[in-house]
Amino acid sequence: MVWTRKDLLGLEDLSKEEIGLILNTAESFKEVSSREIKKVPALRGKTVVNLFYEPSTRTRVSFEVAAKRLSADVINIATETSSVKKGETLIDTGTNIQALKADIIVIRHNYSGAAKMLARYVDISVVNAGDGWHEHPTQALLDIFTLREKIGRIDGLNVSIVGDIAHSRVARSNIWGLTKLGARVTVCAPEILIPPAVELMGVRVTHDIDYALKNADAVNVLRMQFERDSEGAFPRQLEYFKKFGITKERLARVKKDIIVMHPGPLNRGIEISSEVADGQNSVILEQVTNGIAVRMAVLFLVAQARDKNR
Amino acid sequence: MVWTRKDLLGLEDLSKEEIGLILNTAESFKEVSSREIKKVPALRGKTVVNLFYEPSTRTRVSFEVAAKRLSADVINIATETSSVKKGETLIDTGTNIQALKADIIVIRHNYSGAAKMLARYVDISVVNAGDGWHEHPTQALLDIFTLREKIGRIDGLNVSIVGDIAHSRVARSNIWGLTKLGARVTVCAPEILIPPAVELMGVRVTHDIDYALKNADAVNVLRMQFERDSEGAFPRQLEYFKKFGITKERLARVKKDIIVMHPGPLNRGIEISSEVADGQNSVILEQVTNGIAVRMAVLFLVAQARDKNR
Amino acid sequence: MVWTRKDLLGLEDLSKEEIGLILNTAESFKEVSSREIKKVPALRGKTVVNLFYEPSTRTRVSFEVAAKRLSADVINIATETSSVKKGETLIDTGTNIQALKADIIVIRHNYSGAAKMLARYVDISVVNAGDGWHEHPTQALLDIFTLREKIGRIDGLNVSIVGDIAHSRVARSNIWGLTKLGARVTVCAPEILIPPAVELMGVRVTHDIDYALKNADAVNVLRMQFERDSEGAFPRQLEYFKKFGITKERLARVKKDIIVMHPGPLNRGIEISSEVADGQNSVILEQVTNGIAVRMAVLFLVAQARDKNR
Repeated sequence: MVWTRKDLLGLEDLSKEEIGLILNTAESFKEVSSREIKKVPALRGKTVVNLFYEPSTRTRVSFEVAAKRLSADVINIATETSSVKKGETLIDTGTNIQALKADIIVIRHNYSGAAKMLARYVDISVVNAGDGWHEHPTQALLDIFTLREKIGRIDGLNVSIVGDIAHSRVARSNIWGLTKLGARVTVCAPEILIPPAVELMGVRVTHDIDYALKNADAVNVLRMQFERDSEGAFPRQLEYFKKFGITKERLARVKKDIIVMHPGPLNRGIEISSEVADGQNSVILEQVTNGIAVRMAVLFLVAQARDKNR
Repeated sequence: MVWTRKDLLGLEDLSKEEIGLILNTAESFKEVSSREIKKVPALRGKTVVNLFYEPSTRTRVSFEVAAKRLSADVINIATETSSVKKGETLIDTGTNIQALKADIIVIRHNYSGAAKMLARYVDISVVNAGDGWHEHPTQALLDIFTLREKIGRIDGLNVSIVGDIAHSRVARSNIWGLTKLGARVTVCAPEILIPPAVELMGVRVTHDIDYALKNADAVNVLRMQFERDSEGAFPRQLEYFKKFGITKERLARVKKDIIVMHPGPLNRGIEISSEVADGQNSVILEQVTNGIAVRMAVLFLVAQARDKNR
Repeated sequence: MVWTRKDLLGLEDLSKEEIGLILNTAESFKEVSSREIKKVPALRGKTVVNLFYEPSTRTRVSFEVAAKRLSADVINIATETSSVKKGETLIDTGTNIQALKADIIVIRHNYSGAAKMLARYVDISVVNAGDGWHEHPTQALLDIFTLREKIGRIDGLNVSIVGDIAHSRVARSNIWGLTKLGARVTVCAPEILIPPAVELMGVRVTHDIDYALKNADAVNVLRMQFERDSEGAFPRQLEYFKKFGITKERLARVKKDIIVMHPGPLNRGIEISSEVADGQNSVILEQVTNGIAVRMAVLFLVAQARDKNR
């Protein structure tokens, strides 16, 4: 199978085979980052623009490292200093970047659908680095890559996602990807953090963390964002940790080799205990490593597809 | 003819031949950005510092892309995070950058004359990326490059510049460049936005947009900046659009192939209608593309001149 | 002798021989920055992350230029936009950067000991670019390099450091380095700006600037930071300049070829007069040039040591 899409907008649109192709390509790129000279000329002379309307060091840096290991030139644009301030529309910004003869726009935006809209207006490649509560496909791909690497398959696995499902693009992309590849997905959160009709996405819903963990091969723990300086933040955090926090005690009662994932950054003591985050079930840092490989694969595939279509 | 200046400070100082040399050099660099590997080794091992005292994503990114396509190393310094905050003078900042053995400083500054002053204190090359209301030479060069590419010549053309002429470095640089190359320039704006004695620069003045467009081969539409949150902003914008906005209706009454330019970012519905901005007379995105070629040419020429003089 | 440390955390820990090795390595790298193509492939395919929790354009730019001249890929992370904002701990940030397969973290942090703590938690190299009031080793190394280059030796020199010794990591690193190499160090400041028990570091203390300058082979003038908008700032600045400012008049009474250093950025007319800063005794800009060579040496040595230990 050959990759033909100029963009990566989300996992909802992709076939099982397309996801598999990205994962296989990532596998072959993973080795590059363990060389002494971590560099291949695959995207030499190409320009990758990181267009970030939301601050996100982790994702921006991961894409930047990935692009540079492919020998691309990288340009960072952050909202704070951009002409977005002067009121330029997203589409004008996109067509301008295209006019610079850039090859790929990596976009992070607070509106769901922003990446898709942009992709419709430019001929160059668009990679969604997170759009509102909609999708964050490369995060889900690296989660799935890590799972596949650890267990050898996705088909038939029981994967639980715990946390604020309602507002999580990470959860949505994981659900699309995992279910396409044959995993059984359970989402677990307080009732108010479960989106309406989420069952239509093919997942099981529970509000009981121990039930979610029982029989799970892996658990993906989402970051919990309590409004910081608000009055009730601390008691609510404690309560959340008590009811949903992933702890050594809870893991002691489930599959011994359950895989614990987290997209980062961690809130230690809120959604996960430090013992678990740093423990032997945790693959959290391997996820970061795999993020480079997955993003190298995505950048490489979309650039190649576009070159062929020209 | 050979380029001998270590700096590019403005078009007022340049001869017709020097402007022609930049345009010809840009022409030969333009092709680089359409290659699959958009890179030439012309400035390999050189260091270009973007020193921006005003936020400007568009110009900074254009210079950064241009420098990287020439294989230079690029360092971005923005006021917000610089030791400017700690009160260092422009000249100290410049001599420090020189001491880093950088080769070119691209400077954007809110004071007219800042680039010129800097150039006097350092031996390395200085490229003016906009100084106060004074000059923005690379913007004018890309405008003129685009015109020349479209029409084949500048000599004898009628070019109108519409908008806030009084506070526009883009207007000033265009006037210097266009008149030197033999174009007839008309400036058009409400009376309050025409600088005193502008006729001495060799231009015709009008407050009637239809008169300005009549017989024009090209119109350069400046961005109108109304104070945003001020009370009267919206009615004043509407009134400006009615009296000076470039619309399909207005273009229907003038030369069929009039060229419409805009330095960006666009205020759609204020100084230009969307129909015109996206219409067949518009070369706005080609200007962006040509900006890379022109800036590659400028960086290349000043670096070369300095290497020869050492 | 061979360099074996994966990190450079401070000069307190280093032997005389290790400091000498860095200086000798810097000497051989200095020539690179005077070539037409200022680039060597020593760190090609390596990733250097500038992790800055305090704004510092000068130091960040110097490390960025040094890394790029060694052909490394450089990633800049500044607090303002980092996930630090989201409350991630320094150690989590460090292990994440390690998981990206970065090779070197250059860290600037407002807490003393931050670099050392980080170095304990990651296997990759850590270079201290300033931690609180503790150490700023590369600044001291470039100061010492400059002195050695000018005078030919450090052993037996009389070096005075003038300014806010109590809150200066530059002073501390200079004291460690200079005394190890056999210089006699005098610190000079108003009583309130001398740290308690500083004599235990092997230095002489004085509050009399003329006494400090007498017989000095070199004086290192620290930047004085008066709270800017505070009411008494201006009279206090004047008073400081009168009592401790390095002026032509003061230099007229001391060794004719005394070397004047300053880490920058300068407060002209506060701790140093413009005549002296720009005068023939000043090596301030040479310090900036040497900073590149010293940082190239440090990045090269720590990367090499780590590669060997793997």
